[in-house]
Amino acid sequence: MTLFSEINEQPERVAALLAAQQKNVGKIAAEINKRKIEYVFLAARGTSDNAGRYANYLLGAMNGLPLALATPSLFTYYNRPPKLKNALVVGVSQSGASPDIVAVLEEGKRQGCPTLSITNESNSPLAQASDFVLDIQAGNEKAVAATKTYTTELMTIAMLSAALSGNKKQWSELKQVAGWMKSVLKHHDFISQAVQRYRYIDQAVVLGRGFNYATAFEWALKLKELSYIIAEPYSSADFAHGPIALVESGYPVFAVAPKGKVFNSMLQMLQRLKNEISAELVVISNEKRALSLAQIPLPIPADVPEWLSPLVSILPAQLFAYHLTLAKGYDTEKPRTIHKVTKTT
Amino acid sequence: MTLFSEINEQPERVAALLAAQQKNVGKIAAEINKRKIEYVFLAARGTSDNAGRYANYLLGAMNGLPLALATPSLFTYYNRPPKLKNALVVGVSQSGASPDIVAVLEEGKRQGCPTLSITNESNSPLAQASDFVLDIQAGNEKAVAATKTYTTELMTIAMLSAALSGNKKQWSELKQVAGWMKSVLKHHDFISQAVQRYRYIDQAVVLGRGFNYATAFEWALKLKELSYIIAEPYSSADFAHGPIALVESGYPVFAVAPKGKVFNSMLQMLQRLKNEISAELVVISNEKRALSLAQIPLPIPADVPEWLSPLVSILPAQLFAYHLTLAKGYDTEKPRTIHKVTKTT
Repeated sequence: MTLFSEINEQPERVAALLAAQQKNVGKIAAEINKRKIEYVFLAARGTSDNAGRYANYLLGAMNGLPLALATPSLFTYYNRPPKLKNALVVGVSQSGASPDIVAVLEEGKRQGCPTLSITNESNSPLAQASDFVLDIQAGNEKAVAATKTYTTELMTIAMLSAALSGNKKQWSELKQVAGWMKSVLKHHDFISQAVQRYRYIDQAVVLGRGFNYATAFEWALKLKELSYIIAEPYSSADFAHGPIALVESGYPVFAVAPKGKVFNSMLQMLQRLKNEISAELVVISNEKRALSLAQIPLPIPADVPEWLSPLVSILPAQLFAYHLTLAKGYDTEKPRTIHKVTKTT
Repeated sequence: MTLFSEINEQPERVAALLAAQQKNVGKIAAEINKRKIEYVFLAARGTSDNAGRYANYLLGAMNGLPLALATPSLFTYYNRPPKLKNALVVGVSQSGASPDIVAVLEEGKRQGCPTLSITNESNSPLAQASDFVLDIQAGNEKAVAATKTYTTELMTIAMLSAALSGNKKQWSELKQVAGWMKSVLKHHDFISQAVQRYRYIDQAVVLGRGFNYATAFEWALKLKELSYIIAEPYSSADFAHGPIALVESGYPVFAVAPKGKVFNSMLQMLQRLKNEISAELVVISNEKRALSLAQIPLPIPADVPEWLSPLVSILPAQLFAYHLTLAKGYDTEKPRTIHKVTKTT
């Protein structure tokens, strides 16, 4: 199965990317640091938009950079692009081919902003519209559902953050990612059995916060694309402002809650869901207090630092979506209705 | 029923707000125009976050201002707020009481940014942390599900945009909003009958784009809070990048597609859903080509301009959620699990 083999390729892909691109990322970061950048304006769709959510938290927390997610229709349909003064304009796209994302970069360039693309196709229209190109080097991704291009996009963003801050500890932690990924992939048999319990769900909520807000969105997207479950992602805070009303006894809630600054906030929400509402919990974590609340605990290594946890915690989520798709009798390679490259305007 | 009466209060509330606050909005806009503002940094949760999505498109298209939606956890849990140079920091909150939103405004003030709050409580902690306060004057909102505070937040944002641009045509169009709202509320009987068809749905997708991306989010939120349907909002472009795989014959898709720049893009998606997938469509529009595709068409007046259509198109959506809640036998006044004021950190 192509999807399964692409999921398993991820440790070697991120290791090779780190080795091959460290210098290039350093050069680009040095160029960016020379400019007077006040914020990042980032355009992306689908899985790449979820990588953008990671950048939103990471560049904010580690590099002090506010990040605005672009609204491409202002550039295409409305033809009223905002004034992007002192912005670094970034496009993230596996194919580099979606016209709306290209339009945002072209406008950034027209307005004199530095432009950066993060893409798997270094000759794509997106790359051609950019001053700087970071090649995610994921190799050809054949499965319609993106997996290795997501984690290599995250790796590229993490490397960029480390290069912008010049923090050596970050670089040494980046070298451990491939090993952490490998150890998580070993849970494959457990996950293939555990998903049987969810053969007949048709909806779920997926929670994550901070750095792992991105993971919640990406887990939910894989569930929707592959297993046709309507899985809605939320931060635990937004969830408390209304949508929690959905949850009744036995309702499936999937959560990404590794150790870190937002752990207590996630734990409180999980305790509330478990103790007050008797929700059904699947939890990805490296903290016993969260894992012990779950009907299905999905552990990740204890020593993964919070800022890199999205690169590791998405792997059990990908395996979960993959095996649930098989359990439901659907085709993991050819999801209905969608295609590998989606060109929106 | 409190919720029903609050839905029906909306025309008079927005008319009174427009009359009472025009001068104050003008003064605040003049102050803002004096500063060197390069982008807006906006913090909100729940319904107010949906008003923020409207601001994202409106201030971009009409005022050339990029807008970043804040990630409050960077300010609270991570204690790593980004550097907000040359930003206008805006908080939107009915109660003005949520500590995370207050924290973003306080940090903006600490960094020397101009700060603006849009709130129903002009003595709230949020208002006290702000240089400028826009009172949405919605009156006491008793129903847990927000309706009149949403449309008065939108009205306030629309007035601010008109004042910042000094466009007189915008002000004359603002005066027509209350009348358009009244005419839409007359469809009440039709909607109460039409929702019967959806008595047994437990999920749906809600589509909107551009200015009405906000409407899709707010319609979905009302469905989740009140009738416990998992309703997921999307722009038609993001929807094409994966989640469309969810939709099979008969799947309920609710869409907001009034006339305007993004209409053709929405129409193409609706045609694809109808003709290729035989989805079930409920469509809010003032264009026959969209309404005629729907099993349940929900018309709005023909002359509503696109930039103000979110203030009008949310009313049939609110009535739809209200009546569906009754049809499902749930309590419209006391949704389970949630409370009127949610204080998240």
